[in-house]
Amino acid sequence: MIVVMQPVAEKEQIEGVENKLLEMGFAPHRIQGVGRVVIGAVGDRKIIFPTGLEVLPGVEKVVPITAPYKLVSRQVKETSSVVEVGDLKVGGSEIVVMAGPCAVENEDQLITIARLVKAAGAQVLRGGAFKPRSSPYSFQGLEQEGLKMLDRARQETGLKVVTEVLNPQEVEIVARYTDIIQIGARNMQNFSLLREVGRTMKPVLLKRGLAATLEEWLMAAEYILAEDNFQVMLCERGIRTFETSTRSTLDISSVPQAKELSHLPVIVDPCHSSGTWRLAEPLSKAAVAAGADGLLIEVHHNPAEALCDGPQSLTPEKFSRLLSAISPIARAVERAVHVGESLSKTGGL
Amino acid sequence: MIVVMQPVAEKEQIEGVENKLLEMGFAPHRIQGVGRVVIGAVGDRKIIFPTGLEVLPGVEKVVPITAPYKLVSRQVKETSSVVEVGDLKVGGSEIVVMAGPCAVENEDQLITIARLVKAAGAQVLRGGAFKPRSSPYSFQGLEQEGLKMLDRARQETGLKVVTEVLNPQEVEIVARYTDIIQIGARNMQNFSLLREVGRTMKPVLLKRGLAATLEEWLMAAEYILAEDNFQVMLCERGIRTFETSTRSTLDISSVPQAKELSHLPVIVDPCHSSGTWRLAEPLSKAAVAAGADGLLIEVHHNPAEALCDGPQSLTPEKFSRLLSAISPIARAVERAVHVGESLSKTGGL
Amino acid sequence: MIVVMQPVAEKEQIEGVENKLLEMGFAPHRIQGVGRVVIGAVGDRKIIFPTGLEVLPGVEKVVPITAPYKLVSRQVKETSSVVEVGDLKVGGSEIVVMAGPCAVENEDQLITIARLVKAAGAQVLRGGAFKPRSSPYSFQGLEQEGLKMLDRARQETGLKVVTEVLNPQEVEIVARYTDIIQIGARNMQNFSLLREVGRTMKPVLLKRGLAATLEEWLMAAEYILAEDNFQVMLCERGIRTFETSTRSTLDISSVPQAKELSHLPVIVDPCHSSGTWRLAEPLSKAAVAAGADGLLIEVHHNPAEALCDGPQSLTPEKFSRLLSAISPIARAVERAVHVGESLSKTGGL
Amino acid sequence: MIVVMQPVAEKEQIEGVENKLLEMGFAPHRIQGVGRVVIGAVGDRKIIFPTGLEVLPGVEKVVPITAPYKLVSRQVKETSSVVEVGDLKVGGSEIVVMAGPCAVENEDQLITIARLVKAAGAQVLRGGAFKPRSSPYSFQGLEQEGLKMLDRARQETGLKVVTEVLNPQEVEIVARYTDIIQIGARNMQNFSLLREVGRTMKPVLLKRGLAATLEEWLMAAEYILAEDNFQVMLCERGIRTFETSTRSTLDISSVPQAKELSHLPVIVDPCHSSGTWRLAEPLSKAAVAAGADGLLIEVHHNPAEALCDGPQSLTPEKFSRLLSAISPIARAVERAVHVGESLSKTGGL
Repeated sequence: MIVVMQPVAEKEQIEGVENKLLEMGFAPHRIQGVGRVVIGAVGDRKIIFPTGLEVLPGVEKVVPITAPYKLVSRQVKETSSVVEVGDLKVGGSEIVVMAGPCAVENEDQLITIARLVKAAGAQVLRGGAFKPRSSPYSFQGLEQEGLKMLDRARQETGLKVVTEVLNPQEVEIVARYTDIIQIGARNMQNFSLLREVGRTMKPVLLKRGLAATLEEWLMAAEYILAEDNFQVMLCERGIRTFETSTRSTLDISSVPQAKELSHLPVIVDPCHSSGTWRLAEPLSKAAVAAGADGLLIEVHHNPAEALCDGPQSLTPEKFSRLLSAISPIARAVERAVHVGESLSKTGGL
Repeated sequence: MIVVMQPVAEKEQIEGVENKLLEMGFAPHRIQGVGRVVIGAVGDRKIIFPTGLEVLPGVEKVVPITAPYKLVSRQVKETSSVVEVGDLKVGGSEIVVMAGPCAVENEDQLITIARLVKAAGAQVLRGGAFKPRSSPYSFQGLEQEGLKMLDRARQETGLKVVTEVLNPQEVEIVARYTDIIQIGARNMQNFSLLREVGRTMKPVLLKRGLAATLEEWLMAAEYILAEDNFQVMLCERGIRTFETSTRSTLDISSVPQAKELSHLPVIVDPCHSSGTWRLAEPLSKAAVAAGADGLLIEVHHNPAEALCDGPQSLTPEKFSRLLSAISPIARAVERAVHVGESLSKTGGL
Repeated sequence: MIVVMQPVAEKEQIEGVENKLLEMGFAPHRIQGVGRVVIGAVGDRKIIFPTGLEVLPGVEKVVPITAPYKLVSRQVKETSSVVEVGDLKVGGSEIVVMAGPCAVENEDQLITIARLVKAAGAQVLRGGAFKPRSSPYSFQGLEQEGLKMLDRARQETGLKVVTEVLNPQEVEIVARYTDIIQIGARNMQNFSLLREVGRTMKPVLLKRGLAATLEEWLMAAEYILAEDNFQVMLCERGIRTFETSTRSTLDISSVPQAKELSHLPVIVDPCHSSGTWRLAEPLSKAAVAAGADGLLIEVHHNPAEALCDGPQSLTPEKFSRLLSAISPIARAVERAVHVGESLSKTGGL
Repeated sequence: MIVVMQPVAEKEQIEGVENKLLEMGFAPHRIQGVGRVVIGAVGDRKIIFPTGLEVLPGVEKVVPITAPYKLVSRQVKETSSVVEVGDLKVGGSEIVVMAGPCAVENEDQLITIARLVKAAGAQVLRGGAFKPRSSPYSFQGLEQEGLKMLDRARQETGLKVVTEVLNPQEVEIVARYTDIIQIGARNMQNFSLLREVGRTMKPVLLKRGLAATLEEWLMAAEYILAEDNFQVMLCERGIRTFETSTRSTLDISSVPQAKELSHLPVIVDPCHSSGTWRLAEPLSKAAVAAGADGLLIEVHHNPAEALCDGPQSLTPEKFSRLLSAISPIARAVERAVHVGESLSKTGGL
């Protein structure tokens, strides 16, 4: 940590800062510059986020040197983590594909889609039972009934299941029915929820908040790891910017950045980030090329009737073509993606 | 709602959209343009957020005409709402000032600050018992102990109390000890929490999310009003932008905008938005001039020792001067602000 | 400047950085931290923006300590600058009001509006002769003819004139006809234009770019001052953010921030920032309350027929009421604004 | 265009809007909704950007239906354009690679780098002779001397040359020495410059502005095409967002979006967007996977001594490896990239 003094700071003020640093357990190193003094504070990195220095008389600003996260950091764990969801490995040589509808609507719909995405090559079924909707008048999900349908779809198809949890009180029941617990973008800094999910020891898919910096995203993951749950997958799903031609802006740079700073696997959600199925294929290709460990794709057998997010859902046929299209990209970066049969008609199974 | 067809849309596709609209209860009005067809959909505004149209063949985009919120809208209720917190009125002719420390640290600290802000003119004591912190290693608040201290400070001083709740399970206990329940920026779209808080029938201070549009902010308020709790105050606390010289960017335009679109009172938090006490005074002046109904100010008698957010806390003396400074601004917009005694030294009481 | 070494940096790499710093004229001060080394570089502040250090082996990042601007800085000149436009002083105790149409359309329009804004209390007439338009098919301004009309309006009314220049080649002619040269937001980093305008020694109104940080804005001003032209007024006109309910987001914090970091006067443009005349009054009030030295307001006697930006233009009557409304705010911050006669009808003069 | 009337609009106001539309050459179609009237305006798409409607009494807002650009639109020209730079085709099956230093520093440096990037596989040499720098105290480029060095490097190596122009007055001389004229991000809306460059009939590389929407970027290109110069390449180089871990945020979605909306080729600049050579490879891979037609890469044989942007420059060896790495990605999307010899040491030629 570096404390930058004001150019006009007086001797007593400089000494005041040094004394405060000593009190806090840091060794202060004064550097007399041409126009001002700066003080380097040397100390154990466990002392994170000291406060109060900025308001001492004569202080202009405090510049942190060490990143605030520890357990998620690649400095702490050099090798990339592989999250194990039963026999499925996320973060290994194979790109993992999670696909399914935005919301669980009914058992027929779910089983139909589950069979189709499985046939096309997906390994994980996604589907929301608890839906965070910006309007209280929108469909809010089937809740526990939806969880049970996901469970039945899992038994029917052998797919793993990922679903979102919104409320700490529902973590237990969600954990019972799902293989991977999803924290949505709106809840990335819902710290009660993060801790509760951490305690389940279940694999977690942590979506990046719309306005979250890379550092805040890693700090949110740190909350889960701090509960001794290291089974965390980061999920880039777009950030909010001034650009309105897409629903949000996929921050493709965050994929290699997160993988450089952290050992955790990174999944990309091209559908939510763009808001349109039209961009699912080019963005999926870009994600795999940039080093993503997996994809989260919305698939619906009848997007026009979907209860939510129809415009960003692929039909099973388009999903099948998408997997074929990313397969050579995966090979080009020395990875693989499982491609199933080619679906030509929704009713074709 | 307007459905814009693609220039290449065929007759059958146009009819398909019209049939779908009829099914949904809308009356379609086709307009044959020079290059394309657009279809106006006339219907009861209760049908909000229809989905599925965007993915019908031939559709280019769907343009909503009616705002998605109802209960919060000034179209539904023309007169400005006054939220009553006991005998305190928020949204009336007097600017309400809420002040206190970022976090409740201990009883001495809290009572000391409470007395000072009361003496200076504040009507509400703010202080966090449950703290949302970006790091799991930061001070997380005194929780229930903190709530009890707020209660004692209230009894001691007669101030009303506002404090944040993070978890739906804690809403009941927080509601028991506080006069106003605060929803923080990170939880603005924590819909479980919004609903739970709505059900308490207590006054709510709803902070705008860092990346929330004005519309999303009003929709979050709609969640609370939809539970029949109309006692909602909106709180602008800055949005996240590219500018880094302040911690976030106070969106001063949102004050008159929110008041034009909605009947709810609007409070401004100049400390969190800027991240520095240096800007508290000019931003408070701007807020009152732009029509804010109240201010939320961080005050600490010893910012250098504050357990959180010291740099954005005013000393009681500075807070006292701030109230004196905004008083003539309030008069200039035909409102009033309560100014107490002038504090010259922290220990002066 | 602080050079932060990587935790794994080797002794030779550390020495390499120190040698490079010595070569560049800095005195290096090594601080051995617990996990890594940081090197403080002490040197004359004239050496700004050294490059190359970041790519030396073992370097993690370089943290600048000193602001990159000099001449615009309040550290260099402590007292606030007053820009003199003939006998008009900008930055003194009086709030200066600049008003007029977006574009000069014809002589009648301009003289009519000029007389009305003068009568209402404005001191400067604004009006574009060269218009930067996002579409090549929009009205691009009357160019030299427009300049001559501005000149005639000045002679007719005694108002000072401010108008925008787009092209370095046109600086000379624009300078001949105007009292204040405006650099528009899109040209804030058009460095050829900044230098050319600097050389005229005329007062300059420098609008902030839509995506410009406070520091970049001050650096753009530095370009003009570096040509020995100190007659610069900064103009905040909104920044681009995710919020779309206003055309851009007025960064009200930039007013006190710019005035703290720099000695230059700050003007606020509430019309362009919001894109609607409805917000002109509350934002003007906020600007004056926050410490702005002047306002730039679009006024058109017939907004529905305006060739550009009609929706953000006030009628002369509304402009007249706006001045009356900000007058008490100005008094509340111990300043004054000139309020002329009350206009009740456009044709009333 | 759709005109949305206020719910309270009166009959006369609605008729007023309809009459105005008729005057402007539109056929108005009134739709009586449940809560308000909307008016569809049918007319020839050449009437773009009508103004004035928003300020008519009773109007709430105006919603444009047709995109404001024409010549750049894929609706006007369905097939993808191939820009021909001599015998080099941009936008065809081969990914074009442009590489070289940020700034031309001296002839030795330039020729050395030119030979190295040519050997590695580049087809175009980039290098700045006129440099837009945020500080007036930074190196501003060698100007005309730099242009001559670029010319000599071209003769020496057979590479095409791309270089930036900043000032309309310098367009002629820049055009004389370069094969492709670059418009930098800061000048994307420098309309005088766009027009001047359009008139040269030379190929143009148009960088996207830091805060430019996709639509504004296409409108800037429209300025050049409106001068009958159709030889335009769009260049995505990152947009400004709240994320600070990279210098700007590469908007990867803009690549497929721009190619869907426009027929022009799209180039990606991974170095400027990220600000670090470390991300050049993953972002180049993502760009090619997403459909980019070319890459713009900073290469310097001695980044630590580079006069600008060293941290984002690759060494020739890294550049050579980057081309090898993207080659299989190019094949995976059925395109090709020219890969030259493998460079193992800078001095190796």
